[in-house]
Amino acid sequence: MQYTYAERVNYMANSAIRELLKIAEQPQVISFAGGLPAAELFPLSEIKESYAQVLGAGDPSVLQYGTTEGYLPLREEISAQMRAKGIQTEADNIFLTNGSQQGLDLITKLFINPGDVVLLQNPSYLGAIQTFRSYQANFDTIPTNEAGIDDLALELLIKQNPPKIIYLAPTYQNPTGTTLTLKERKAVLRIASKYGIPIIEDDPYGELRYDDEALPSIRSCSTDNEVIYLGTFSKTLAPGLRLGWIVAEKSLIAKLVVAKQGTDLHTSTLLQRATHYYLTHFNAVEHIKTIRQAYKFRRDYMLTELEENFSDQAIWTKPSGGMFIWLTLPERYDTVNLLPHALAGNVAFVPGAHFFTYNGKYSSMRLNFSNPAPQQIKQGIKLLSTIVAAY
Amino acid sequence: MQYTYAERVNYMANSAIRELLKIAEQPQVISFAGGLPAAELFPLSEIKESYAQVLGAGDPSVLQYGTTEGYLPLREEISAQMRAKGIQTEADNIFLTNGSQQGLDLITKLFINPGDVVLLQNPSYLGAIQTFRSYQANFDTIPTNEAGIDDLALELLIKQNPPKIIYLAPTYQNPTGTTLTLKERKAVLRIASKYGIPIIEDDPYGELRYDDEALPSIRSCSTDNEVIYLGTFSKTLAPGLRLGWIVAEKSLIAKLVVAKQGTDLHTSTLLQRATHYYLTHFNAVEHIKTIRQAYKFRRDYMLTELEENFSDQAIWTKPSGGMFIWLTLPERYDTVNLLPHALAGNVAFVPGAHFFTYNGKYSSMRLNFSNPAPQQIKQGIKLLSTIVAAY
Repeated sequence: MQYTYAERVNYMANSAIRELLKIAEQPQVISFAGGLPAAELFPLSEIKESYAQVLGAGDPSVLQYGTTEGYLPLREEISAQMRAKGIQTEADNIFLTNGSQQGLDLITKLFINPGDVVLLQNPSYLGAIQTFRSYQANFDTIPTNEAGIDDLALELLIKQNPPKIIYLAPTYQNPTGTTLTLKERKAVLRIASKYGIPIIEDDPYGELRYDDEALPSIRSCSTDNEVIYLGTFSKTLAPGLRLGWIVAEKSLIAKLVVAKQGTDLHTSTLLQRATHYYLTHFNAVEHIKTIRQAYKFRRDYMLTELEENFSDQAIWTKPSGGMFIWLTLPERYDTVNLLPHALAGNVAFVPGAHFFTYNGKYSSMRLNFSNPAPQQIKQGIKLLSTIVAAY
Repeated sequence: MQYTYAERVNYMANSAIRELLKIAEQPQVISFAGGLPAAELFPLSEIKESYAQVLGAGDPSVLQYGTTEGYLPLREEISAQMRAKGIQTEADNIFLTNGSQQGLDLITKLFINPGDVVLLQNPSYLGAIQTFRSYQANFDTIPTNEAGIDDLALELLIKQNPPKIIYLAPTYQNPTGTTLTLKERKAVLRIASKYGIPIIEDDPYGELRYDDEALPSIRSCSTDNEVIYLGTFSKTLAPGLRLGWIVAEKSLIAKLVVAKQGTDLHTSTLLQRATHYYLTHFNAVEHIKTIRQAYKFRRDYMLTELEENFSDQAIWTKPSGGMFIWLTLPERYDTVNLLPHALAGNVAFVPGAHFFTYNGKYSSMRLNFSNPAPQQIKQGIKLLSTIVAAY
């Protein structure tokens, strides 16, 4: 039998890059390609204890069906943490998801008709582009100039071709590691608000800051419901748990409930209970400090190695947080073609083209510094430099 | 700011019934409304031990990002269990999901364009109807006569108005508890195959059988890729874990990978590792036997109580498995209107109308016997009978 798929399947990204990057998982390859946290920093014993406690308390409801919006005490805890960051919420504004990727998917399901325009940064997170594409969205990109977001051009664009939604990762963005200034945040918010366009603020990396004080989130600057905020435990606790949350108005939470009902009923009860135990019994703040120290060291290490090996052949971002550096070679390079050479030489990256909806910078690449050990960073950047020079 | 939602939101079921049934969660209410397993039978200590073992083995990759298709050893284990039931599979035919509800959602995402027809049993599982509706499907229902599925009428219907997909829960179906005979299974498969229509075989209750030998699944009767089989650990292990699987051809698995990537990246690594540990270190077969005994007792108990209290005012199904009995009152009754009276009298059910895409039997109701204790069943059925008589 030959299957006849739905039209949207034509818009779902093929996985050529994923197939290629499976090579990067081989042990001899030094991989800057993944977006993986450092597994050796996961709080294994605390998570073990959390599961042991909730499964050992004699309450079988930890394994029973749960509500779609999520376990109330966990929503209360997250709500308090959001308030501590200046985001005004109650538990009723918090909706639990299977990682923030599911938050993206559900919001797209609720807002995007085929042909609707999503306005986003160029480049943007690959997984977000994939989700929007799967709902047959079209794209516009946020205009920039040397100073950052060009708010005059942005307002003109929105006025002339109003997008259905704006997608932003304002803090230590994947893939570039760059951060929108407070001025840029407020400008986008003002324009979005004026034209009635909701903003998705995707904030997986906000806690991974290495230099400055945290900037206020866009959500914390808003006074209305313009901003739908996405949070996750993937970078601060562990991504293999698959737990994230949405901060939104109650009317939108009610729609999310219906959408998630049809999607997977609810997020794992046991996972939510164990995470609640972890957050209320262990020092998550100290744990995040440990992660910050380790990643800051790796970022500095990679920046130093780049300086030593690439200063005459490339430019790169100097992110003050997150997990990625964005390196741009001279324009004659095409990193999509460079990748097989790099893999043959046992080093991996993600070609920049994959993070653009169009007009990709084909000479850029994304380098991850959170996962490889410092010694691998040293060796890998050296290797990469030799391969680039020989290309 | 006023949100403008996507068109599909108009087709997402409102949650009036869910709101109403929140009353059923109050402790004084005897609820036959839920679709909940008996929590007191969950293997708490074995699951606790499984999590302790995988989190205590010193391998932090149990908390790391994982592959979208799922943890290979778990796919191998499920594949072996499927083969033991006559379904020819390899690990590459198994795709892990967050419960079988997600399997339904992903398959619908891959197959259904707005306006496409889903052919299903009438009544059918409410959650499946919700999922199909959220993709703006239309519905046709499988024609039946006194002998069951009317295969002549079915073939005519499919010929004249070919559906995009057929959705079947052939074994101890939710909501009626009824089972398709082998003859019916083969008839639907033959016709679907002839006209090139894929079948979704949803099998959450197959293991919960109390009388007969198991009938072959439709998938096990098929020689081509006509049948996409959905399995789940929700009824045999625990629903609060949220773990299910899809059995499908490799070409479809590849599409599912892309669809799930955009939806939530992958199913929890830790959950998959712990479930794999459970399946390979504890006697899951013995555990299922314990569940069967308890539920068989409750089913028999409910049937006896129905006989004693309803024999002059209703008819009902006598399911040989699953979790539900379908009770039909004389036609003058409308169970949607009856429900508030029942709730006021501290007993709950789900009105039958919710399980129909149209032409609902408004005098039917779904009664769950797996969750309430026998004493509650006795008391609740008596209560319900009094309320019905007084209505």
